[in-house]
Formats: sequence, structure tokens, C-alpha cells
Amino acid sequence: MKIVSYSIREDEMPALNAWKQEHPEVDVQIEQDLLTPQTAKKAQGADGVVVYQQAPYDRATLQALHDAGIKNMSLRNVGTDNIDMEAAKELGLKITNVRVYSPNAIAEHAAWLMGRLLRREPEYTDKIQKRDLRWAPEIGREMRMQTVGIIGTGHIGRVLIDILKGFGAKVICYDIFQNPELKAEGLYVDSLDDLYSQADIISLHVPSVKENIHMVNDTSIAKMKKGVIIINVSRGDLVDTDALIRGLDSGKVAGAGLDVYEDEVGIFNEDWNGRPFPDERLNNLLERKDVIVTPHTAFYTETAVENMVNISHNDNIKLINGQEPDNPVSLD
Amino acid sequence: MKIVSYSIREDEMPALNAWKQEHPEVDVQIEQDLLTPQTAKKAQGADGVVVYQQAPYDRATLQALHDAGIKNMSLRNVGTDNIDMEAAKELGLKITNVRVYSPNAIAEHAAWLMGRLLRREPEYTDKIQKRDLRWAPEIGREMRMQTVGIIGTGHIGRVLIDILKGFGAKVICYDIFQNPELKAEGLYVDSLDDLYSQADIISLHVPSVKENIHMVNDTSIAKMKKGVIIINVSRGDLVDTDALIRGLDSGKVAGAGLDVYEDEVGIFNEDWNGRPFPDERLNNLLERKDVIVTPHTAFYTETAVENMVNISHNDNIKLINGQEPDNPVSLD
Ligand SMILES: NC(=O)c1ccc[n+]([C@@H]2O[C@H](COP(=O)([O-])OP(=O)(O)OC[C@H]3O[C@@H](n4cnc5c(N)ncnc54)[C@H](O)[C@@H]3O)[C@@H](O)[C@H]2O)c1
Ligand SMILES: NC(=O)c1ccc[n+]([C@@H]2O[C@H](COP(=O)([O-])OP(=O)(O)OC[C@H]3O[C@@H](n4cnc5c(N)ncnc54)[C@H](O)[C@@H]3O)[C@@H](O)[C@H]2O)c1
Repeated sequence: MKIVSYSIREDEMPALNAWKQEHPEVDVQIEQDLLTPQTAKKAQGADGVVVYQQAPYDRATLQALHDAGIKNMSLRNVGTDNIDMEAAKELGLKITNVRVYSPNAIAEHAAWLMGRLLRREPEYTDKIQKRDLRWAPEIGREMRMQTVGIIGTGHIGRVLIDILKGFGAKVICYDIFQNPELKAEGLYVDSLDDLYSQADIISLHVPSVKENIHMVNDTSIAKMKKGVIIINVSRGDLVDTDALIRGLDSGKVAGAGLDVYEDEVGIFNEDWNGRPFPDERLNNLLERKDVIVTPHTAFYTETAVENMVNISHNDNIKLINGQEPDNPVSLD
Repeated sequence: MKIVSYSIREDEMPALNAWKQEHPEVDVQIEQDLLTPQTAKKAQGADGVVVYQQAPYDRATLQALHDAGIKNMSLRNVGTDNIDMEAAKELGLKITNVRVYSPNAIAEHAAWLMGRLLRREPEYTDKIQKRDLRWAPEIGREMRMQTVGIIGTGHIGRVLIDILKGFGAKVICYDIFQNPELKAEGLYVDSLDDLYSQADIISLHVPSVKENIHMVNDTSIAKMKKGVIIINVSRGDLVDTDALIRGLDSGKVAGAGLDVYEDEVGIFNEDWNGRPFPDERLNNLLERKDVIVTPHTAFYTETAVENMVNISHNDNIKLINGQEPDNPVSLD
């Protein structure tokens, strides 16, 4: 059995080597290239491909895969927006993705952003870089004393709740579907308005379906407590960035921790050092001492990367063997 | 009843104003000055003083207090090393300090340092400042996957254990006096050597009594796991800084988070911006991307400062009223 794994990064190699050791029956051909109409030819003679890229899987690319005899494609990530689904269906491709690779990676990142903001780390980092080692006046706040509002109690939100409880914080939650255990604990408030009016920190863990787009906006910010901290490690479009900046400028919002940004595609995961930076608004956020931006790195842990490698390759074997994969992608 | 409160900082005012409101019977005279032989005169006619300074409470100062008719002195902090105890005893002074103001402030700070190091924050901060927004190759680690060794399970160590459990980390502990609850949970290892050989992260929460000075040294580092992270938010002299730097340089130690430093007195809480920095070794630590130094700010939270203000003033009242204070300082 032969699998071609495209755009494998250096940091994926330890996990991939370990997977290969456990699967001596599989011949894994490692490629650094993205999957394109040209590189698809390298899959000729293989039984499946494993892929991960922002670049589109367009009709030409999928056709080239098909021409190389490939029917089984496993994504190492979750997102399928860049796949031409119609073409995939016509060509009879079978596709899997990795739906859950490590909720902890994301939930922990959210907690770390909270901690850095509570302790005013950007201001200290700046002072310390200038060798100003005075502590006053940047006094910190303790997590234990905060009421944290979690919007969305799915995989990630639930892990974050456990983390925050360990600190002794007060946790309140909102979800359109209430988890029975959390409900029994009395953690849910009845409405988003209740959550907004009580929470010192608000953390978003919902998908960016239509109803949720720009859920943090001028109106919702007006309902929040003065000095609120807003955390978004989910999807950039959950937050109306202009409204957030207005909230920060007015002092209503004390801080924001953002691993995602509305217009991040094509900007995050690129090196702009020595080049004109393409987004003035993002530049404003990056310069601020009351905002921490991380370039979509919440997921980027050894454990998550290992899971992405293992789950995708395991599912690719299942596709090849005609078994039901764990993470089938519906092409409809 | 009148109390003179010396060297009150801006950030102490909210707590002090709240305390004054709750104690309308007490006339609190607020002074920004340190307590010196000169400023002691300002306490003339008062019943007690509340103080907090690194500068010495030497014989001349205590004599001046005595001459102003003051017998009751309450420290807003814990340390009493800078008091001339012999003079205090001879002059019949009664002294209190604040022994525990917020273990959570310190324990949370230790957790935040761990998170920043696990996620390689100093490297990202540097990259992001240069607008290099690529995530690879600085891959992070998850707290959940770490074995954390806590040395010292007193007030602070115990809070940290709860925090780490919330993350799902594996916690192991060592203390010369074992806490019965933690013992029942099976958290203690038998020896420091056991802890050194198993822990991915080691955090020190012991006092700097003679036996503990330089407990992190070349010998103990040699017993640790490759890639260990060392956290010290307790006392600078627990760590042999030169040995730590050797460990970092060799790659044996992957990171260190330090809120304290052997030679911090006279350097931390000072502004060196535009002046020659006085400590080459500390400068090395401050420049490194595998080390995070905070200038003894772990304690510096709103809650801790509030407790320091409240506990010291409450004990000063007790001294004045001839009652037993909560935190008497023995002058022997
Ligand atoms: N930053 C990153 O690297 C990263 C990585 C993975 C996932 N994510 C994002 O994190 C978010 C959460 O992921 P998850 O795995 O926990 O998802 P999940 O599907 O397990 O949970 C989402 C929860 O949100 C709830 N929900 C949906 N709409 C809601 C609304 N309007 N109000 C309240 N609750 C609502 C759902 O009922 C569900 O319980 C997603 O947006 C995902 O895209 C980010
Ligand atoms: N960074 C800061 O701002 C800050 C603030 C407050 C306290 N501290 C420091 O934190 C440390 C811990 O404070 P705490 O309030 O938890 O103290 P604590 O007295 O409550 O606990 C200390 C524990 O260490 C144990 N111990 C002593 N020597 C030991 C040894 N050789 N090996 C193992 N265990 C040993 C004791 O049995 C005790 O359980 C102290 O050094 C204190 O000075 C730092």
C-alpha cells in the first residue's frame, strides 16, 4: 500500500516517522510540495494522498489526481472550504478530514491569552525591553477573582471550563444546546445578555455560522461590563473588528486576545518582515498594548500536529481498504 | 485613633480608601515618603504607623519613631530582614507583618510563566514584532501532556497544584513535610531525585532557608530530564544562576521562568532605561528567548495589594487597642 503525503513540514516529521514505524506495511512517500495539477503526477501508482494547504483543491488539481489514479484524499486539517466539491463528486473522490485534533491546544491557548492580559504582559514586556524594571503602575488581576463567560460549550469550551475551574474562577456559560452535565452544575445563564452583563472575561467557542458572524459588535459590547476582556480563538468573523477597536479606544473593553482575525487569509502565516504590511487595521491591533494577536497558532502544538498526522493517515488507510473512515467529508 | 501610613503608592489608594470608609473611627494620614529619621516626625501624635519599604528600618529610624511617641508598627509586606530587631526590642516597639496576602497571585504567575514558555511566547513576540507571522517552526507544547514537579506544597504550591490539575497535567510533588490530603492522593514522590528524573517542568515553592540555597545547581540539573523547564517565583538564591545558564546553553534546560533573581536587590523595581544596566548576567537572562524574567511582580495583583493594605491596617488597630494581632513579628 502506498500513500503520498504532500506539503509535509519539518515539525510534522517526528509524528510521521513514528506513524511509519507503526505501519511498516505502508510505503509513505513524503513531498514538500503543495498539491497542484503538476505535483499530482507524483501520486501516480499510489493508493491515496494526504494533504494540507490553504491553496485551492480546484477542478484542475482534482482532475490531475484522478488522472494519476487516485481516489482517496485525506486532509490533515478540518477546513474543506477550498475544495471544489462538485468536481470531487463528479470524479468519484473520497475525502476525509480531521475534525478534532486537540481541543486542549485551543483551550489552553485561550487561557494563556487571558493570563497575559490579566497580568498586563505586553506592557511589562515593553518596559522590560527598555530595562524599566519597576512594577507600578501596571497592577495585575487574578484569574480566581474573575467571572468568565464561555460562549459555546462544545469540545473546546468544555476543556476551557475545566481549566478555569482549576484557577478557582467563576465560570458562566451560554450555548444554544445545553450540555446536561454543565446544566446540572448550574453553569448556564439564560441569555447572551445575562452573560454580557456578568462576565469580566468573555471567550468565544462557537462556529462562524451565519447567526454568529459579528456577534461581538457595538450593540453587544455596549451590554458588557466596563473593563471586559474579550478572547477569540475561534473564527475571525465572530468579532466586528472595528467595533472592538472602538470599544478598546473608549476604555469599555480593557483587553482582547485574538488568535484569529476577519481578514487573516493571506496575511497570517506569512513573513512580512521588510515588506509593506498589507493591513492597517491589523497593524493597529498588533501595535496595541491592550491587545495580543497570535497568528492562528492556538492549534500549533506537538500533540495537535501528531493527531493531525495520525488521524489523516489512519483514515487514508481505511479509504484505501474500503472501510468506513472516522472522519468522512460529505461531498453534498 | 490615628494611623500614619508611609510610602503609599497610587495603586494602593483604592484599597486604602475602601478601608478608610469601613473604619470611620480611624484617622488615616497618608504619606508618600519612606519612613526615615526625618519623616518619622510626621507620626507625632499618632497611635501607630503602617509601612512598606526596602530601605532599612535602622536604629536611628526606630529611635525617631519612638521619640514621636509611636510604639506600634505594621508592615504591609512579609519581609523583616531590614529591621534592626535589637533596637526595636530595646525601644519596646510592637511589630506586625503580612504573612499571607495572596498565594493565588504567586501560583497563577507561575502557571502563566509555564504557559508562555510552553508556547514559546518570547520567540513569537519577537517574530510578530518584526511582522513575521509564520507559525513554524516554533511549535508549542500542551500543559495537559506535561508532568509538573512541585517542590514545596505550602500555601502557594498547593494552589498551583489545583491550577495544574485543571489543565489535566500530571502533578508530582516533594516536600519535607507531607500534606495529608496530597499524600492520600498519591502525589508525593519519595525524593527530589525522583522528582528531577520524572518532571518536564519543575517549580520551586520552598523558603530560602540554608538547606535550600542553590538547590537548583549543576548536580541537580544533571539529574533532570532533557528539555526541562524550571520555574522560580520564590526566592532568587534557590537557583545557582550560573548553573542555570550552563544548563540553558547546553540545551539540557529548555526554558526558565524567573520572578526572582539572586542579586535582584537594588536592580528590580528600578528604572534603568537610558542608564548603564548594572548586571551583565541578568542582562543575558533578559535577552534570551528561552528565559522569561519578571521583576518580582508575581505578588503584584489588585487582590494581593488589597490584602496587604487591609491586613496591615487591621493589625495596627489591634496593636493600638492592646489586642493580639493576627501577624505578630517576634523580635527575638
Ligand atoms: N484557533 C484555532 O486554531 C482553532 C482550531 C480549531 C477550532 N477552532 C474553532 O473553535 C470553535 C469551537 O470549536 P469546537 O471544536 O469546540 O466546536 P464544537 O462544535 O464542539 O462546539 C461549538 C458549540 O457552539 C455552540 N453554538 C453554536 N452556535 C451558537 C450560538 N450562536 N450561541 C451559543 N452557542 C452556539 C454549539 O451548540 C456547540 O456546543 C470553532 O469556531 C472552530 O472553528 C479554532
Ligand atoms: N515572588 C513573590 O512575589 C513571592 C511572594 C510571596 C512568597 N514568595 C515565596 O514563595 C515561597 C513559598 O511560599 P509559601 O507561602 O507557599 O510558603 P509555605 O511556608 O506555606 O510553604 C513552604 C513549603 O516548603 C516546604 N519546604 C521547606 N524546605 C523544603 C525543602 N528543602 N524541600 C521540600 N520542601 C521544603 C515546607 O515544608 C512548606 O510546606 C517562599 O520562598 C516565599 O518567600 C514569593
